[in-house]
Amino acid sequence: WSRTGAARFAAGSPGPGGTGRAAPVLAALLGLGAVLAYGDRRRRTAQAAQAPRYPRYTREEVGRHRTPQDRVWVTHGTDVFDVTDFVELHPGGADKILLAAGGALEPFWALYAVHSQPHVLELLREYKVGELSPEEAPPAAAATGDPFAGDPPRHPGLRVNSQKPFNAEPPAELLAERFLTPNELFFTRNHLPVPAVDPGSYRLRVEGPGGRALSLSLPELRSRFPKHEVTATLQCAGNRRAEMSQVRPVKGLPWDIGAISTARWGGARLRDVLLHAGFEEEREGEWHVCFEGLDADAGGAPYGASIPYGRAVSPAADVLLAYEMNGEELPRDHGFPVRVVVPGVVGARSVKWLRRVAVSPAESPSHWQQNDYKGFSPCVDWDTVDYKTAPAIQELPVQSAITHPRPGAAVPAGELTVKGYAWSGGGRPVVRVDVSLDGGRTWRVARLAGERPPPERAWAWVLWELQAPVAAGAELEIVCKAVDGSYNVQPDSVAPIWNLRGVLSNAWHRVRVSVRD
Amino acid sequence: WSRTGAARFAAGSPGPGGTGRAAPVLAALLGLGAVLAYGDRRRRTAQAAQAPRYPRYTREEVGRHRTPQDRVWVTHGTDVFDVTDFVELHPGGADKILLAAGGALEPFWALYAVHSQPHVLELLREYKVGELSPEEAPPAAAATGDPFAGDPPRHPGLRVNSQKPFNAEPPAELLAERFLTPNELFFTRNHLPVPAVDPGSYRLRVEGPGGRALSLSLPELRSRFPKHEVTATLQCAGNRRAEMSQVRPVKGLPWDIGAISTARWGGARLRDVLLHAGFEEEREGEWHVCFEGLDADAGGAPYGASIPYGRAVSPAADVLLAYEMNGEELPRDHGFPVRVVVPGVVGARSVKWLRRVAVSPAESPSHWQQNDYKGFSPCVDWDTVDYKTAPAIQELPVQSAITHPRPGAAVPAGELTVKGYAWSGGGRPVVRVDVSLDGGRTWRVARLAGERPPPERAWAWVLWELQAPVAAGAELEIVCKAVDGSYNVQPDSVAPIWNLRGVLSNAWHRVRVSVRD
Repeated sequence: WSRTGAARFAAGSPGPGGTGRAAPVLAALLGLGAVLAYGDRRRRTAQAAQAPRYPRYTREEVGRHRTPQDRVWVTHGTDVFDVTDFVELHPGGADKILLAAGGALEPFWALYAVHSQPHVLELLREYKVGELSPEEAPPAAAATGDPFAGDPPRHPGLRVNSQKPFNAEPPAELLAERFLTPNELFFTRNHLPVPAVDPGSYRLRVEGPGGRALSLSLPELRSRFPKHEVTATLQCAGNRRAEMSQVRPVKGLPWDIGAISTARWGGARLRDVLLHAGFEEEREGEWHVCFEGLDADAGGAPYGASIPYGRAVSPAADVLLAYEMNGEELPRDHGFPVRVVVPGVVGARSVKWLRRVAVSPAESPSHWQQNDYKGFSPCVDWDTVDYKTAPAIQELPVQSAITHPRPGAAVPAGELTVKGYAWSGGGRPVVRVDVSLDGGRTWRVARLAGERPPPERAWAWVLWELQAPVAAGAELEIVCKAVDGSYNVQPDSVAPIWNLRGVLSNAWHRVRVSVRD
Repeated sequence: WSRTGAARFAAGSPGPGGTGRAAPVLAALLGLGAVLAYGDRRRRTAQAAQAPRYPRYTREEVGRHRTPQDRVWVTHGTDVFDVTDFVELHPGGADKILLAAGGALEPFWALYAVHSQPHVLELLREYKVGELSPEEAPPAAAATGDPFAGDPPRHPGLRVNSQKPFNAEPPAELLAERFLTPNELFFTRNHLPVPAVDPGSYRLRVEGPGGRALSLSLPELRSRFPKHEVTATLQCAGNRRAEMSQVRPVKGLPWDIGAISTARWGGARLRDVLLHAGFEEEREGEWHVCFEGLDADAGGAPYGASIPYGRAVSPAADVLLAYEMNGEELPRDHGFPVRVVVPGVVGARSVKWLRRVAVSPAESPSHWQQNDYKGFSPCVDWDTVDYKTAPAIQELPVQSAITHPRPGAAVPAGELTVKGYAWSGGGRPVVRVDVSLDGGRTWRVARLAGERPPPERAWAWVLWELQAPVAAGAELEIVCKAVDGSYNVQPDSVAPIWNLRGVLSNAWHRVRVSVRD
């Protein structure tokens, strides 16, 4: 797991080793038919290898080869490979290798350690068709004056919904491959440019009536409070908005099913910091804890949000001021150097690049607390909406989605494996996932993977899987629905939960596929 | 509110006062047309009053007159009245007066104080058609040897789903008339005969590893621990099971929408009792608090259930050892002298006639914790069920139902008022109720009545109302669905949540009515 840092993207490790060792491994990985095809491929590429010089290509030219129709090209170091014939042989699945089509392999290999075995590069070498032009420059620098010019580099595997501000989700094919989402693939929801924070001069202010004001440096936050670790899923309120837009247009980024990810977070408990500042365990009346980020709009207004005081100080709620994500320093896109993590609650309250924590009798005055991230009836539209009538979203409802197969896929006859994730807000565990292959008429119970969470602190998703026989020629409408520890369920359909902002889209997830003859 | 005790059923208070005073009041209540009809009626009954002697009827004969077709008869004291012509004039609605048809008025009048005004009895007198036979005996005593022979008398307004053990719900017409359900109408879910408890010798045992054993008398429970009051709704897991049976038969009592009621409970906090016995605020590992009732089956096995330790000791969870219900001593049907009240949790855990509280590393071994009150997938039936695969129901999902109009009603054209209740488990408030008159195609937002509960301790239901114009001749499919504070919603349809025991029936509630021409 520690092998996921962005710094290691370029660390391809070919090392010594030959096909003599690789062949049996591949036989085991690919099965006999695949090995025969691989042997055939070897003979053909052996002839091609007699030509010592390769044509040169630019990155742009490589980028035109993204599909089997256009040939599938990838780069590794300065070498260019045509892996079209290997796509179907890829042990991890054709869908996964295609994520790198037209670009560099290294960012993906960095996430999947299996590629660091010597035989992998040996195998790849046989598909070499060219080299990158020596004059091939790094991508052009951003225009000056662009407030987003300082944003960090991102993983090419992310599905980008908006470049400025940057909003992107992991591709569904990779989303549920791991219980902990690699930091590079963790969904990114930025409202504003990414602030450039100098960790040396960073200070976190803590204040409000009834406590003494604190100004904490990063070393103080790390050393004065015990480090607490929590594995928690964050989900954007707009996850699966694209499905809601199909009912009727909504305003918002067209998230597919990937505005949700899971990490192990490390940091100080917000509770410990508040008690250290003299705030009480319990307060009479209505109190909130408001957060402000260092990200600000052109007018200087920061991103902000708040949570109820009771959640902030509850030892059971596990709210963190996090400085670590999956054992590493927080990446810039995820709030470096400090972000809030509010488990079980909509991602919008887990404020990044945190600059201020303020105890207050009122919710955060920010736009994102007052006039956004709220749910409304399908009968409310932009001409009738009154934001004061709905509570700010905190805990999210029960959710699930199918990550494999993908909509429109043609799957082989025989045993079909359906995979996905399920999660619920408020620490409620997912207790069951039902899967239908016939649009919801009949159901089967999926197998839930992974450890059982502690009761009432089930902050992380569950990944699930179902095997079922499918007949050639069948058209399937695969559906999933989850049940949480309060026996809440997902609604059958999208239209009755439609809302003008396209949030809280948690109807049954439906994926239509055909079974190949 | 204090006027609801069973002891006052017989306390009819005719007193002095004549029609001279009643007429203007009635005019205000009924409107001009009704008063004209009433005056007409007066003239006719004045003639009948010249005959001083009335025919005699048995209660059984009165009981045959329950509908306008058979004439609607009621009794008050020893008088028999034919109120058929008054049914449509009843200020509280025809549906309400028909609840008393064929029987005595007193139990209903005791619940609705408006009837204690003198003009009401004066008005009734004009409908007198007979008297009860002097030899009319009280109902025959139950056969000896019947374990249910000692059950208490019940209110005749209850809709009985099972007589032995007694299981009954308030009629939908009365269910949401009051925020607090009168004790006499509170739904009753008994699994066994009602125990006859002598309050003088009653003792509550409290025990388990890590605490000292207590044996508390009723006066000790009342005096040693502060009285804590909580307004909480209890709902049976089987509420609305009748709708689920229409999809496919299930095993269980055919509850309509009334296996839910609300009371203000008073008693000692379970937390205070446990801490007094030396149990800790927090415990490492899995711990439960098990309850046993004094109700036992033929083999002596008591009713039992348990809740997680964390909920039992949490100050925010408000779990009570209740000895009061709506300001009165607990009625026998509701657990006299002491019951558990676990707010936000399925009624089955609120054990009545409590005899023992035991801290334990395991859930209650009782049938009702281990092999009942659990939810399963619609694909699980009696030949495949494995009770160990599902968690015991604790918090219940979001719920709502329409109490007015009733299914099949013919409502007048003009302004239709739709009424109902909504509630969610775990203290999550209901934040919105959507109502549709066209089967769920379009929606309106209902008005929520009553006080706003404290956040995260919304233990009680909300009553809601919607006014909408309806055109003569229309066929309406009225639908309601609620949204709770975690933005969980009810599922659209029943079949996908069908389960073999018919529990957790919380799909949209649908009521078909026609609009009169």
